[in-house]
Amino acid sequence: MSVIKVERKILEKNDAIAQQLRAYFTEKKIFAVNLLSSPGSGKTSLIEQTVKNSRSLFKTAVIVGDLQTDNDAQRIAALSIPVVQIITNGSCHLEANLVRDAFQNLNENFDLLFIENVGNLVCPAGFDLGEHLKVVVASTTEGDDKPLKYPAAYRNSSALVINKIDLIPHINSDPEAIKKNALLINNRLEIFEVSCTTNQGIESWTDWLHSKIKQS
Amino acid sequence: MSVIKVERKILEKNDAIAQQLRAYFTEKKIFAVNLLSSPGSGKTSLIEQTVKNSRSLFKTAVIVGDLQTDNDAQRIAALSIPVVQIITNGSCHLEANLVRDAFQNLNENFDLLFIENVGNLVCPAGFDLGEHLKVVVASTTEGDDKPLKYPAAYRNSSALVINKIDLIPHINSDPEAIKKNALLINNRLEIFEVSCTTNQGIESWTDWLHSKIKQS
Repeated sequence: MSVIKVERKILEKNDAIAQQLRAYFTEKKIFAVNLLSSPGSGKTSLIEQTVKNSRSLFKTAVIVGDLQTDNDAQRIAALSIPVVQIITNGSCHLEANLVRDAFQNLNENFDLLFIENVGNLVCPAGFDLGEHLKVVVASTTEGDDKPLKYPAAYRNSSALVINKIDLIPHINSDPEAIKKNALLINNRLEIFEVSCTTNQGIESWTDWLHSKIKQS
Repeated sequence: MSVIKVERKILEKNDAIAQQLRAYFTEKKIFAVNLLSSPGSGKTSLIEQTVKNSRSLFKTAVIVGDLQTDNDAQRIAALSIPVVQIITNGSCHLEANLVRDAFQNLNENFDLLFIENVGNLVCPAGFDLGEHLKVVVASTTEGDDKPLKYPAAYRNSSALVINKIDLIPHINSDPEAIKKNALLINNRLEIFEVSCTTNQGIESWTDWLHSKIKQS
């Protein structure tokens, strides 16, 4: 048995669980978004700002994955919304069975489920978690060329959130170049430029999420 | 055959090659440093500043790994030092056999070999590449809790370079908290605070590298 065959078997099993999950989410009118990014790009901050600015529009719950610590779940729990922390104990990405098990611990009275993946721009891009769409979060501080260097995360996502735009005056990074490179990889990307510190751009993002929830 | 057994076999093969490489580097008086970090923390910028500030002390060569593009190798080649780009085509970390093959393309007239790993704070931490030591690079913009959330990269490294300290006045990140959390994971870490934009702290870092090269 080769390693490639083992990997294929793991992916097939993962995909079967993911398809069941997606069907279940759809039936229950839960719109599921899988958030991908590098460590520290601001996935948890984006969830915090989204929740604070969308309480009148839709109800949110969160499943969050980390190698270690429940820091992120504690931050999200402070918003008084349902949250479950998955600690992967070193594994570099979430898989659908982990999401399925975590979901058992959530009540179902919400419209949007954020699945905050492990901070890693490589491995999580290859795993379907039953989401309706993936969103990749980029920080302006990471530089312009990350879409070209980590293409799968951008290719497999429906939207790109460029975070930390408040830092642009202080760094050598050009959001126009990030956008241009992202669209070279995936020209169907919806792109949002936000700052979770100043709240700039968050309304367009929550409006877009709201439209997706209503369509689903 | 289980997946775990396959993984163990891959690691055993990797470790055997890495040990041969390390013995070869030691014999040739080449000091090898494996650089780990998130995407966009500034590994390539750190190499650029190190080379510019150490030409009178030691000669450097670089092997750089990326999923796609030779952007980093082009930046380093502009310094007129030997560089080889490894494109992993989607793989999330470098392995020792890739470093061995890349090394064939370098002349041996240098003292320091930087192996710039794929930008990923998870998977690269588990693979010995024949280096004498690992160095983890953190950006102040990533937040304070990354050592706790990605412990293996910090546990397996000998030094931590905290980069982008010029941005501290503009962000909610405390380098003292990064240091405290890093030392909780690994209290033997040498820690350097630098800015590759202003050159602050680079001299201490190059002096430390010089001392390591002389000891080796």
